[in-house]
Amino acid sequence: MKTGKPIAGDPAVAAGMPPASIDEMMNEMGRCARSTMKELSRSSNDQRNEGLRNAARELRNRAGFILAENRKDLVEATDKGVARALIDRLALDSGRVEGMARGLEAVAALEDPLGRRLAQWDRPNGLRIERVSVPLGVIGMIYESRPNVTADAAALCLKSGNAVILRGGSECFASSCAIHRCIADGVDLCGLPQNAVQFVPITDRQAVGYMLSSMREYLDVLIPRGGKSLVQRVQDEATVPVIGHLEGICHVYLHESADVAMARNIVLNAKMRRPGICGAAETLLVDATAAPRLVPEVVAALVQAGCEVRGDEIAGSLSADVIPARDADWTTEYLDAVISIRIVDGVEDAIDHIRRYGSGHTESIVAENAVAAERFLAGVDSAIVMHNASTQFADGGEFGMGAEMGIATGRMHARGPVGAEQLTSYKYLVRGSGQLRP
Amino acid sequence: MKTGKPIAGDPAVAAGMPPASIDEMMNEMGRCARSTMKELSRSSNDQRNEGLRNAARELRNRAGFILAENRKDLVEATDKGVARALIDRLALDSGRVEGMARGLEAVAALEDPLGRRLAQWDRPNGLRIERVSVPLGVIGMIYESRPNVTADAAALCLKSGNAVILRGGSECFASSCAIHRCIADGVDLCGLPQNAVQFVPITDRQAVGYMLSSMREYLDVLIPRGGKSLVQRVQDEATVPVIGHLEGICHVYLHESADVAMARNIVLNAKMRRPGICGAAETLLVDATAAPRLVPEVVAALVQAGCEVRGDEIAGSLSADVIPARDADWTTEYLDAVISIRIVDGVEDAIDHIRRYGSGHTESIVAENAVAAERFLAGVDSAIVMHNASTQFADGGEFGMGAEMGIATGRMHARGPVGAEQLTSYKYLVRGSGQLRP
Repeated sequence: MKTGKPIAGDPAVAAGMPPASIDEMMNEMGRCARSTMKELSRSSNDQRNEGLRNAARELRNRAGFILAENRKDLVEATDKGVARALIDRLALDSGRVEGMARGLEAVAALEDPLGRRLAQWDRPNGLRIERVSVPLGVIGMIYESRPNVTADAAALCLKSGNAVILRGGSECFASSCAIHRCIADGVDLCGLPQNAVQFVPITDRQAVGYMLSSMREYLDVLIPRGGKSLVQRVQDEATVPVIGHLEGICHVYLHESADVAMARNIVLNAKMRRPGICGAAETLLVDATAAPRLVPEVVAALVQAGCEVRGDEIAGSLSADVIPARDADWTTEYLDAVISIRIVDGVEDAIDHIRRYGSGHTESIVAENAVAAERFLAGVDSAIVMHNASTQFADGGEFGMGAEMGIATGRMHARGPVGAEQLTSYKYLVRGSGQLRP
Repeated sequence: MKTGKPIAGDPAVAAGMPPASIDEMMNEMGRCARSTMKELSRSSNDQRNEGLRNAARELRNRAGFILAENRKDLVEATDKGVARALIDRLALDSGRVEGMARGLEAVAALEDPLGRRLAQWDRPNGLRIERVSVPLGVIGMIYESRPNVTADAAALCLKSGNAVILRGGSECFASSCAIHRCIADGVDLCGLPQNAVQFVPITDRQAVGYMLSSMREYLDVLIPRGGKSLVQRVQDEATVPVIGHLEGICHVYLHESADVAMARNIVLNAKMRRPGICGAAETLLVDATAAPRLVPEVVAALVQAGCEVRGDEIAGSLSADVIPARDADWTTEYLDAVISIRIVDGVEDAIDHIRRYGSGHTESIVAENAVAAERFLAGVDSAIVMHNASTQFADGGEFGMGAEMGIATGRMHARGPVGAEQLTSYKYLVRGSGQLRP
């Protein structure tokens, strides 16, 4: 086994942990997580929910401490000259702490994701086969910037009986440590092992590398949540399965039957409500037959809201506000107030464009024609396909999952919003009376 | 893009394919597979079933050709001095060809795995959310020795609307080519693209390396089926998600309440019916309180059937036929007529032994006591947990899935027998009436 460099002067050491290499520390966290699985597997939904409600209470009781720790993160980020948008994501206030506490309670209120009978059938030889949901196991969660992810991820993992090792971004290290403390205490108070929810107590990036390369024995799955480079790195280097989302190159398609007011409102919301989230629309497809009716009004509304609009030649001919799009625009996740417009020849052409350029995240058709809408829903192969709704609904909370680990764009295991139910696996129970295989 | 070495003198070239590098050939197969996905996604269950029944008919019509090609494989294997057991797995006869044809028809008779409504709910804002099953996409199947895997894998992929690139072992190359020909023709006759089921037409191992390292654009998932070294290599090197099974270190646990005749029969069947399959038992756990009653009779039956029995000290003290086990025995998949016995102190001790040494495949408790049995079913964290049944039932066909790609021991996505249903993903359909996210 590789031995990492000693971590002298590290917060973990300062906090009284014995000096050790990072690799040894990570292995110890892995062993602790693995050893909690048997107790977690015997825990009841009531007990895990009590842990979540305890954690919510601890967050409220220690809101002052959390906000003080958050100020440390903000001071450091400001000193480093971190961008304003990132600082906004880092910043907590009492409302956001209350929001985290309510999130924990919302997860506690969800149905038990474990022990669900997913299927049951009998075989001619009398064997009764049952498929029931079980935890995935030990989850490694690697995330950036937003401290509330600490609460959301811990809550979903605990709800679903998984042990989790949280590795938060360095920008929100102090805030996440404080939030984790509340959750671990909440877990402890319900009689479950604190090690069910662990937080990597150092910011050294070697810890991430070790999680990716050397913890196959301890981790069942890795979930990255953050920017493209983080997710890409985890998907490239991980030695255990990954549930990751990459880009959300989301499309809104305006069918020729689209109502112009609904089209305008959905496009505006899908792009401009929050332009920087993965469910924000990046490309607008418009049927050629309806483009003269739809494009001018939709573009005018976008421009008025401060959005840059790029488009193909036909779109440009319909509005002077459209600047020419280049090929790269069809594959770009702007994460900003920019949108591209392409004119298409009906629903099949729209589906083809999405197959070619989309990232399999979320697409929406605006149409009054129900046949066209159903064809779009069937033909588009994305995690989420919508009819007459904003792509910004691509969110675990909006789907009623209480919270989310992220939106998965892979096709294996979970796809779309990853909530507690998506953090489960299953096993088969086979009940017999002495059957032998011939 | 890397360019592989030219494949002069290769069967593919001899068959009239233009000379090309292996890498280019694999890319072209990937493109062809990907381009069939839209047609597959529009195909009906009836059409895919017709393809399967056509393929069964082609197999029967061309049984003579298949057996002639199989003889080529057998001659080459004999010349190479391949082991007798492997030759047995390679060999086809008319009964085995008929078995493959019936397997295709059995898969055709299964329910449609696509378009199943997995869940549906309404949100307070009026959005209706539905989760429906869809194909996984393009599957790369890498397998060894048994030619019937060509038919099983092709059938399950076609049934579930996936495109597949089959890479068969060199030992059964001629047989698999012939079987694949029948299936591709069957697919063609039902009006679907032949490229839905492709077979890598060369034996060069570079093709496997290229599938693992460089086909992320074309493959959604890799499924290895074969020996431990193949599966391990795929899991280590693959750049796309893998559904793999590794070892089956399966346990039979005899609870103190076990009926001695049932215990003897189940142990004999679990070990000796076919000692070399992954569902064969490797370790027998026996409650200390019942060991004097159970061990002598069970060991006598095993030894009489030609099984070597290794055991701990207590087991050795109960039967002179037991030779001492070493620590390595608890983690060894013998795949042979060898079994190890350990005496345990009740169901929790048995669960702990399985958690420590098992591979998460299949375990079975023999018990008359229903409470003990339910505790075992709940506490053992394996893909398949049985009560009063032989571990050799760990098989897709025995589970009623028509056929199987293998038994998955991972926890992500599919776990246990992988049939057509396990080769699906899902997507969300969201139907609205103009909803905007606040």
